[in-house]
Amino acid sequence: MRGRGLVNRLAMIVAAVVLPAPLCAEDGYDLWLRYAPLEGEALARLVRFNPEIRINDHAGYVDPSLEVAAEELARGLGAMVKGAADGKDADGIIELACEGLEGVNSERFVVKPFREHDRFGLRVTGGDYGACVYGAFAILRELSLGADPYTLALDETPAMPLRMLNHWDNPDGHVERGYAGRSIFEWWHLPEKLDPRMIDYARANASIGINAVAVNNVNARAFMLEPRYIAKLARLADAWRPYGIRVFLSARFSAPRDIGGLATADPLDPAVQAWWRAKADEIYAAIPDFGGFLVKANSEGQPGPQDYGRSHADGANMLAAALGERGTVIWRAFVYAVEYGAEDSTDRTMQAYAELVPLDGQFADNVILQVKNGPLDFQPREPFHPLFGAMPQTRLMLEAQITREYLGQATGIAYLAPMWEEVLEAGTGRGGTVAQIIAPVGMAGVANTGSSRNWTGTHFDAANWYAFGRLAWNPALTSEQIAREWTAQTFTRDAAPREAVVHMMLTSRETVVDYTAPLGLAHLMGTGHHYGPAPWVCDLERPEWNPCYYHRADAAGIGFDRTATGSNALAQYTPEIAAQWADPPTIDPRYLLWFHHLPWDHRLTSGRRLWEELVATYDRGVSETEARKQVWAALVPHIDPDRHAAIAADLAIQSTEARWWRNASLAYWQSLNRLPLPDGAAPVPESLAAYQARTFPEAPGQ
Amino acid sequence: MRGRGLVNRLAMIVAAVVLPAPLCAEDGYDLWLRYAPLEGEALARLVRFNPEIRINDHAGYVDPSLEVAAEELARGLGAMVKGAADGKDADGIIELACEGLEGVNSERFVVKPFREHDRFGLRVTGGDYGACVYGAFAILRELSLGADPYTLALDETPAMPLRMLNHWDNPDGHVERGYAGRSIFEWWHLPEKLDPRMIDYARANASIGINAVAVNNVNARAFMLEPRYIAKLARLADAWRPYGIRVFLSARFSAPRDIGGLATADPLDPAVQAWWRAKADEIYAAIPDFGGFLVKANSEGQPGPQDYGRSHADGANMLAAALGERGTVIWRAFVYAVEYGAEDSTDRTMQAYAELVPLDGQFADNVILQVKNGPLDFQPREPFHPLFGAMPQTRLMLEAQITREYLGQATGIAYLAPMWEEVLEAGTGRGGTVAQIIAPVGMAGVANTGSSRNWTGTHFDAANWYAFGRLAWNPALTSEQIAREWTAQTFTRDAAPREAVVHMMLTSRETVVDYTAPLGLAHLMGTGHHYGPAPWVCDLERPEWNPCYYHRADAAGIGFDRTATGSNALAQYTPEIAAQWADPPTIDPRYLLWFHHLPWDHRLTSGRRLWEELVATYDRGVSETEARKQVWAALVPHIDPDRHAAIAADLAIQSTEARWWRNASLAYWQSLNRLPLPDGAAPVPESLAAYQARTFPEAPGQ
Repeated sequence: MRGRGLVNRLAMIVAAVVLPAPLCAEDGYDLWLRYAPLEGEALARLVRFNPEIRINDHAGYVDPSLEVAAEELARGLGAMVKGAADGKDADGIIELACEGLEGVNSERFVVKPFREHDRFGLRVTGGDYGACVYGAFAILRELSLGADPYTLALDETPAMPLRMLNHWDNPDGHVERGYAGRSIFEWWHLPEKLDPRMIDYARANASIGINAVAVNNVNARAFMLEPRYIAKLARLADAWRPYGIRVFLSARFSAPRDIGGLATADPLDPAVQAWWRAKADEIYAAIPDFGGFLVKANSEGQPGPQDYGRSHADGANMLAAALGERGTVIWRAFVYAVEYGAEDSTDRTMQAYAELVPLDGQFADNVILQVKNGPLDFQPREPFHPLFGAMPQTRLMLEAQITREYLGQATGIAYLAPMWEEVLEAGTGRGGTVAQIIAPVGMAGVANTGSSRNWTGTHFDAANWYAFGRLAWNPALTSEQIAREWTAQTFTRDAAPREAVVHMMLTSRETVVDYTAPLGLAHLMGTGHHYGPAPWVCDLERPEWNPCYYHRADAAGIGFDRTATGSNALAQYTPEIAAQWADPPTIDPRYLLWFHHLPWDHRLTSGRRLWEELVATYDRGVSETEARKQVWAALVPHIDPDRHAAIAADLAIQSTEARWWRNASLAYWQSLNRLPLPDGAAPVPESLAAYQARTFPEAPGQ
Repeated sequence: MRGRGLVNRLAMIVAAVVLPAPLCAEDGYDLWLRYAPLEGEALARLVRFNPEIRINDHAGYVDPSLEVAAEELARGLGAMVKGAADGKDADGIIELACEGLEGVNSERFVVKPFREHDRFGLRVTGGDYGACVYGAFAILRELSLGADPYTLALDETPAMPLRMLNHWDNPDGHVERGYAGRSIFEWWHLPEKLDPRMIDYARANASIGINAVAVNNVNARAFMLEPRYIAKLARLADAWRPYGIRVFLSARFSAPRDIGGLATADPLDPAVQAWWRAKADEIYAAIPDFGGFLVKANSEGQPGPQDYGRSHADGANMLAAALGERGTVIWRAFVYAVEYGAEDSTDRTMQAYAELVPLDGQFADNVILQVKNGPLDFQPREPFHPLFGAMPQTRLMLEAQITREYLGQATGIAYLAPMWEEVLEAGTGRGGTVAQIIAPVGMAGVANTGSSRNWTGTHFDAANWYAFGRLAWNPALTSEQIAREWTAQTFTRDAAPREAVVHMMLTSRETVVDYTAPLGLAHLMGTGHHYGPAPWVCDLERPEWNPCYYHRADAAGIGFDRTATGSNALAQYTPEIAAQWADPPTIDPRYLLWFHHLPWDHRLTSGRRLWEELVATYDRGVSETEARKQVWAALVPHIDPDRHAAIAADLAIQSTEARWWRNASLAYWQSLNRLPLPDGAAPVPESLAAYQARTFPEAPGQ
């Protein structure tokens, strides 16, 4: 505005009051459920269809799930026609005809056309009432993506029964590894006060098929098992039940001691067993469909059965017996020797396999072992976890991390679906792909929600929540399909800008790998907060907490030898899989330094030396963050100003961080290998000491 | 919906898609700046007025404050006519004609009518550009309250120069004594990313006249003085400058040691002085209008000049010299002996006076002493602080607490304007009322903002933010006027429901006093978190941390003798003031036990015994919380469902808490005095031990 005025005073007219009523701000709160008005042919079709929504009514009983489905359809269709059908009589029909049927997958829904006199209708049927919620959201998604209601036909069954979010939310509101503000759960004022956000949370989850939620951190506080908290949890369970969501609680294994007045939490102690049984009964009295317990035991200082010389199976089975047929124990496979106090010389990535495989067959039927995608800890790239397929008599589910603990936190873009696709598609050599192995069980994602107005800190992080749910529903969906769906619903249906966004998303995780963890490196992040580069850290109490443990770089070379000459972690995979990775000339270079320690001048199949390739990979990461800023800048005409500005800032931050990662890492590697940068590579602008001196006391999520 | 259906299936029609476009949810984010559409005559007048908005343009330069004022007018007027003026030519004019004038109060604005040919206009003039922001918001407020634009004439000057918020926000996002989520300040991503909330925050503040913000906790981290943080703060300062807001920083007194590499922070050490001077220069280079430092020194463990045997004046003056004419040191008067490690037998309420009055006249001109409303610590009721009037050669400002640390936190309603009115109107006997004494300086309020969608945790807490600003602008406004303004802008302009809400607000703080701290009792809250009753606590390290220190109850009586037979805190007031409070028969009973220790059977002027009066006061508190629930329930037709439900839940929680306070307190007093409850009083349902056993590990804000 400045400088556009006339020379004389009183001459600038800013605005006459002929403004339209203000639009609702695009603050991201509505996520992918914005239901932006349709245009053109799609709008005309929907106006013509203009359905009345009918609920199946059984002798006066209307199931709350059907009410939810009808309300969502009314809300979504109303918004998508945005008044264009005002005054027009209802023409079409959407009939929600789900009922409790036996012998079918209760979550399957079918959308079929029907005729009633001269009226056209869509009938939604399903195995249980809740299937109509999925059906309603599917109809809305299809119509939002431009589908013709007159030819719509859907028949969907989720690929796995348990599609779950794990919240690492503490009852005091802090979210461990949370980058989007405080916890969305307001324990303080539950059960009396239910934040409307809890309904919108359930809507978002139901729209992508998530059907289970563990509400609290796996580093659990025992008092959440007390009656005060059971009442709070029951209020959430009641609110979410119509949306098909069952609640789980992370349980602290030592609760019988912490809050139960017992002297022990030994799983073989009858008093301990009785305590848990009574506790389960108490919970089920308040929450008849309580899902069960999620347990992190004997891992990173958490109590567990090994404190009493018992096995993980002993611990899990004791809790499983307390739940009985009513519920499930989800036991985390993320165990390594840190809790023993003594140093374990086993490669950390091998410890879960070593400890758990011998227990195969010992776990009760209602125990699930929850296994991270890779054997280390949610790194930007890891090979699939060798436990998948290695415990055929144990129910395994996948644990993915939606929150980006190691992938930039709430910075820039890192669309994670390609990473999850990578693990889901991985052939284990032991009974199929990971997706096939977990299909009878399910997958869990560590949530990325918080109190941010847009839920996830950055707008793009909502895509990871969305993609997680969609992949759990159907792992055959591609990352690209999911990105396209999400973008169309979140930003714009216009093909050109939509595809530009999709492209940005699809390459974004690889970019983070490039500038933080190229060529199979891992765990080089800053101590504690995991923010920023710190490959030089080598003085932490336990060896496997140190970045130097993982990169093993010195003057001669870099990488972790996990072949037979090293830790032989390869031996935890089948010979066929191991063979893919055993030899530097033939391994997928993306896993090179994960499995091999190589000299800096090792020549790659690309013809480049390892050092040159490393530098080139960092530089590719940096340049792609730069390019993405340009792509986004060009999208100004297509994105609302608030979200455009926020994302532009996110991308600028990411670009700065990429340069920081590249420069700090190279400065450190050079301090070891004394090699000059390859010709043409930009110099490192600061000293290694300067990078090492940076501190971030306000880094979130610890 | 349930049960209303027909017997046969497929018969219930939920909604045909003839819905209007969905309204923006009333989530509270817009605060009192909702600009709800006008109706009736007020709408007709505004449609007729339909002004074009003009900005003064000086030789091509348009001040950003004028842009802000014009944008806000366009937004607010557009929303209030909500399309009713569509297609109509602009008829009236609003002309923003503020300019930089010398010799007048730069914040004063005048709104006057003018004629231009056959057009009617309102001209806003002011002492500086920023005055037009205040003028614009005043016009919007008046029109929103139903004023006729054709007779509008305003001439306002703020009563005091500094109208400030103090945020007790830590850089990691935790808010000390915050009950509305995380900090609104996203230090993590500043300066690159500016949350749009930072603009809405500035709008809200400017609309009520707040012109200064200390962004960080007085328990300060030294690293916020580092260059990284100065850049972050500069981004906020740039964003807020057009709204007339200057930034202040809470400074840790030991920063020269903590981050400066010096061995001392002794204020008389030349190296320390030079360090602060250089630091101030560095800040002013980035933020030319930086307000200055807010300092908590030698208080509750914070470092300060006394660590080096220097006085508060030595410390404050050293910082004042570093700032020079550019800025101000705000030195908190909240000092008591806790930092000495040794026990101080002086009544805690007397220590600030005892320590600071001897320093009167020693503080530099650009030092302000910030004094809490009462001599203890933001209790539900305290007499005014005896420092007011007692340091005539020192600039004193008032520190109030908007966040309800001791008044129920984010529970129910406690409208605090009557409390602040009480202190502002208090005659000190030493140069006028508190309002008169602080008029040349200002007042600060400890903010209650957070990441909650509605900013303040409960919708009603926004009224405290609003009222604080309005009172600082004009302490002559009554609590009732302010409540009426706020309610009309926030909920409804309809007189009957509006007045019902106003009445609820006006009595609400007294209700909290009744059920938590009747008859002048104080500081009986739970240890640490200050949530809930804990009058029995008597084992904390320092005597003045214990509730028992304050109530001094035993078998014989209750209350703190602050007369000449006790601590003689009365002597810190003028003889006339002290005389009001010296004798139990004549003291305002609301201060009775603050100043007197009395036997349980002491007979009050009401005719009741002290014990009977105590019980009756608790019971009045409880019954008023009950009554308020009923009043609110009857307002269903007038309030949007989301906000109505949230407030209904708040009120239900408050009612539960009131009963808890009453019962736990009575159980404890009875354990001492062995007296039965008066006839007709409800029995205490649980044992004292049961109340004492309650714990709240998730209590927020600590």
